[in-house]
Amino acid sequence: MLPIHLEKKFQLFNEYWTPKILGEFNGQLIKIAKLKGEFVWHSHEHEDELFFVVKGTLLMKYRNDKVLLNEGDLHIVPKGVDHYPVADKECWVMLIEPKGTSHTGTTQTEQSVNEADQEWI
Amino acid sequence: MLPIHLEKKFQLFNEYWTPKILGEFNGQLIKIAKLKGEFVWHSHEHEDELFFVVKGTLLMKYRNDKVLLNEGDLHIVPKGVDHYPVADKECWVMLIEPKGTSHTGTTQTEQSVNEADQEWI
Repeated sequence: MLPIHLEKKFQLFNEYWTPKILGEFNGQLIKIAKLKGEFVWHSHEHEDELFFVVKGTLLMKYRNDKVLLNEGDLHIVPKGVDHYPVADKECWVMLIEPKGTSHTGTTQTEQSVNEADQEWI
Repeated sequence: MLPIHLEKKFQLFNEYWTPKILGEFNGQLIKIAKLKGEFVWHSHEHEDELFFVVKGTLLMKYRNDKVLLNEGDLHIVPKGVDHYPVADKECWVMLIEPKGTSHTGTTQTEQSVNEADQEWI
């Protein structure tokens, strides 16, 4: 029964592309991550993914499209759609996705962090 | 495939306690509302409710507790728990809850707006 102060939670870690878990509701996990550079092409077969940009700018590339997300923007990546996040400078995001979603989807890379290894902060 | 700019969406309406729908993901609806004054005691039998304070301050009263939420705070109201939101001054919130959730829960009052009557903006 406590408030979760979003910005303060970002001060607790510095790693990039390493989601931290803030809370759970209705089977969805609220996560935050710091992003910098490029990630990997991936999709989530059964899970939509909500992004909210807290700081900076995130370019979400799709196979035939791209969406530039600025601070305060929300964006839903639909299930099954290949996407490739790029952050030229450090970007802070909140993500909401179902428990059990792999952040690299069906793609396994060195950047993959299993959800069981994702830390609650 | 467009960004949703959260703050701009609040400029599209002025009514209090009248949730507007911004998007849907994984069976959850993203809603925003302007709050001022007191609402009603209510609970949602099966649905957790995520609050994010975009502007202002929201006091969430519980039967034996209360939580003061400031700008940038997240808070989860667990399913089945009576709660009573109070905003002394105008407060802007984003809510995420499952499709089909009544915003006054099992309590029907003059302030109730059926989800079918909640507008997408």
